[in-house]
Amino acid sequence: MHSPPSPTPLSLAQGLIRCPSVTPSEGGALAYLAGILARAGFAVERPVFSDAGTPDVENLYARIGEGPCLLFAGHTDVVPPGDAAAWRHDPFGGAVEGDELFGRGAVDMKGGIACMLAAVLAFLERRGPDFGGAIAFLITGDEEGPAVNGTVKLLDWARARGERFSHCLLGEPTNPDTLGEMIKIGRRGSLTANLTVHGVQGHVAYPHRAENPIPGLLRLAQGLLAEPLDAGTAHFDASNLEFTTMDVGNPATNVIPAEARATFNIRFNDLWTPGTLAAELERRLAAAAGNTVRYSLDVRPTNSVAFLTAPDAFVEQVADAIEAETGRRPALSTTGGTSDARFIKDACPVIEFGLVGRTMHQVDERVALADLDRLAAIYGRVLDAYFPDAPATHRRA
Amino acid sequence: MHSPPSPTPLSLAQGLIRCPSVTPSEGGALAYLAGILARAGFAVERPVFSDAGTPDVENLYARIGEGPCLLFAGHTDVVPPGDAAAWRHDPFGGAVEGDELFGRGAVDMKGGIACMLAAVLAFLERRGPDFGGAIAFLITGDEEGPAVNGTVKLLDWARARGERFSHCLLGEPTNPDTLGEMIKIGRRGSLTANLTVHGVQGHVAYPHRAENPIPGLLRLAQGLLAEPLDAGTAHFDASNLEFTTMDVGNPATNVIPAEARATFNIRFNDLWTPGTLAAELERRLAAAAGNTVRYSLDVRPTNSVAFLTAPDAFVEQVADAIEAETGRRPALSTTGGTSDARFIKDACPVIEFGLVGRTMHQVDERVALADLDRLAAIYGRVLDAYFPDAPATHRRA
Repeated sequence: MHSPPSPTPLSLAQGLIRCPSVTPSEGGALAYLAGILARAGFAVERPVFSDAGTPDVENLYARIGEGPCLLFAGHTDVVPPGDAAAWRHDPFGGAVEGDELFGRGAVDMKGGIACMLAAVLAFLERRGPDFGGAIAFLITGDEEGPAVNGTVKLLDWARARGERFSHCLLGEPTNPDTLGEMIKIGRRGSLTANLTVHGVQGHVAYPHRAENPIPGLLRLAQGLLAEPLDAGTAHFDASNLEFTTMDVGNPATNVIPAEARATFNIRFNDLWTPGTLAAELERRLAAAAGNTVRYSLDVRPTNSVAFLTAPDAFVEQVADAIEAETGRRPALSTTGGTSDARFIKDACPVIEFGLVGRTMHQVDERVALADLDRLAAIYGRVLDAYFPDAPATHRRA
Repeated sequence: MHSPPSPTPLSLAQGLIRCPSVTPSEGGALAYLAGILARAGFAVERPVFSDAGTPDVENLYARIGEGPCLLFAGHTDVVPPGDAAAWRHDPFGGAVEGDELFGRGAVDMKGGIACMLAAVLAFLERRGPDFGGAIAFLITGDEEGPAVNGTVKLLDWARARGERFSHCLLGEPTNPDTLGEMIKIGRRGSLTANLTVHGVQGHVAYPHRAENPIPGLLRLAQGLLAEPLDAGTAHFDASNLEFTTMDVGNPATNVIPAEARATFNIRFNDLWTPGTLAAELERRLAAAAGNTVRYSLDVRPTNSVAFLTAPDAFVEQVADAIEAETGRRPALSTTGGTSDARFIKDACPVIEFGLVGRTMHQVDERVALADLDRLAAIYGRVLDAYFPDAPATHRRA
C-alpha cells in the first residue's frame, strides 16, 4: 500500500497560519491538524474545556501506536497581529518572500507544529504503524491566553483516560538567534507579590504629625534588593527580583499620603519553592522594617515553580539530532519566561526545542524556510533515535 | 459727639460666620465689614480681580488716618463645611454653646477679623480719628482658593495707589493649643518638584534586555533623603523634604516598566532660595545617578520663598501685649504651612498672630468666647503701643 508523499513543513505551516486562531478562537487550525492526523492513522480527540470567567477553548489530543509514548506538545493559538496594515504581508496569509515564510505563529508556534507533524508523517511513512512505540500530540488552543482551559486540563483529561507518556518534546521557539543554539531543559518559577506600607496622612508642613509611607517603602525595597537571592545553580541563572510597579496616587503636593504600594515579580531557580521564597521575603522585610515600618505583604498564589529535566539520554538524543543537522551543540538552558512545560513536567520528563524566537509576538513574525526543513529533520532524527528499528527492545532514554 | 458703644468681638464674629463665604463666594462678608468700617470713618474700596481660568474674587481695602500705617490683614473666605449634617450646629449659624462659638471660619479667620475690627473700633472710640497715624484693613476673599485674585493683586493695587504700610499684623490662627503660645515671624518656603527616571521596557524574564527604572528611582530618592538639607537656623526649623507620591502605573506583573515618577515637596528655611535649592537637588541627583540612572527633574515655579521678619520693637510690642493678656510669652516661630504673609512681606514687615487653630478646616470649627475677648484686648494693646498718645513722635518699630 502506497501513501501519498508526506506534506512539507512549509505547506503545513502555511495551512496553519491561514487559520486565524487568535486565542481563544480555534480558527480552523485544530480541525486542519485533526484531519491530517486522522488520515495518518491517529486516534484523534477534540476535548473542549470550560471554566467560569474564561472562554471555552478547543484542544486536540491524538495518539498512534502502543508502548513507550513520545509526546509532541504545542499550541495553535496565536497572539493578535496588532495593526495588520503594519505587516509586509497578511498576518494570516502564509506568504513566502525570498527565503522566509511570513505570518502570525510562523515561529510561535505553528511553524514548530508543522515541523513536528511533517517529521512524524515522514517517520510513519518510513517505518509504518508498527514502529515499536507510540506517538502522541497534545495541542492546546489556550497557551497565549489565560491558560486555564488548555494544557492543564488536557493533561488531567489524558491522565483520567489512562494515557501515559515517556517523554515530551515541546516545540516552543527556544533559539534566540540561530537554529540549534538552545534546548530548554527546565524553566524558572515565577512569583508575584504586592507590598503595602502603611503610614499616617498629614500636611507636608507638619511631618511630625504624619508618617510618610514612602521612605518606608524605599527602605523595604532596598532590603529586598540589597543581596542577591542566590548565585544560580548548575543549570539555572541566579534568581531575580524585579519591581514592576510602585504606586501612591496622591495628587496633592501638600499632603503626606497614608499608604504606598509596590508589586514585584521574582523568577526563581531550583533552590527555591514558592514557600521558601515567601519565607525569605518575610525575613528580609522584617529585618528592613525594624520597629519603624508598618507593612503588609501579599504573595499571590502561583502554579509556576522551578523545574529541571535532568540531562539524560533523551536530552542527549535531541542534542545529537540538533548537532547532526546544524553542526552546533545546543546549550541546555533554563532561561526565559514560563511555558506549558511547567504543567507537562508533572506527566513526564519534558524538554523544549523549536524555531528561532526573534520575531515572535512582533509585526512581520517570520521563519526561514531552511529552518523549517532543518527543524523537521531534527525531529525526524529524534524519532529514529527514540524508536530504533523494531522489534528490538525500545531504547528508552 | 457720642458714638454708640462699639460691637463685641462675638457679635462681629457671628455676623461674619452667618455670611456663607466659601471661596470664591463673597457671601456678604465683605459687605458686612465694609458697612461697619465706613460708619467708623474708613475710606473703603472693594476691588474685584479677575484672571483667566479662575473665578472673579471680591476684596476689601479700608484706611483711616494719616502717617505711619499699621495694616491689619486677613481673609473672609472659608473652606467648605463638608457634610453640614456632621456639625453640632449649622456651620453658618454662629451658634454659641457653653463658652464656645461654632461655625466655619470661627478661628480661620473670621474670628480673628472680628477681634481686629472690635479692637480698632474701640481704639478709635477711645482715641478719636486723630490718633497720630493710620490704620488699614486688607481683606481678601481668595486665601483658601487659588490665591490668584486675592492678596497678591490687592497689594499691587494698593502699591499703584501709593498706599504704604509700616507694619502688618496678619490674623491667621497661629496658636497650636492655647492663646498666646505663638507668633509667626516668618514662614518657610515651599518648593515642589517632579522626578522622572527613564528606563527601557521589557519582559521580567529578560531583565538584561530591559532597564528597570524603579531601582534607579529608589537610588535617587535615597540620594535626596540621605543627608539633611540643613540643621535649621536661629529662627527656622531644619528644611524638610517629603515625597508626596511615587507612581509607575504598570498593571502587568510580567513587564518591566519604561518609566517611574515621583513628586516631592520641600519646606525650606532662610538658608535657601528656590534657585539654590534646585541647584542642590541637581547636585544630589547627579551624584546618586552616576552614569547609570537616566532621570529628569522638573522643579515647579514657586512664589513661596522663606522669609523672616527680624524680631524688632514691633514684635516686642505684640509679644508684650500677648504676655500682658495671657501671662504667657509667645514663641517666635516660623513653623507650619504658607500664608499670605509670604506676599505681604514685600510691602512691609509682617507678623502673624491670631486664635487657636486646632479646629480649623474641621467639622465643628469653634472658638472659646474668652479667646475672642482676649485676642481683641491683645490687638487693642498693640494699637495703643503702636500709636502712643498723640501728637508726640510716633513710636515706630
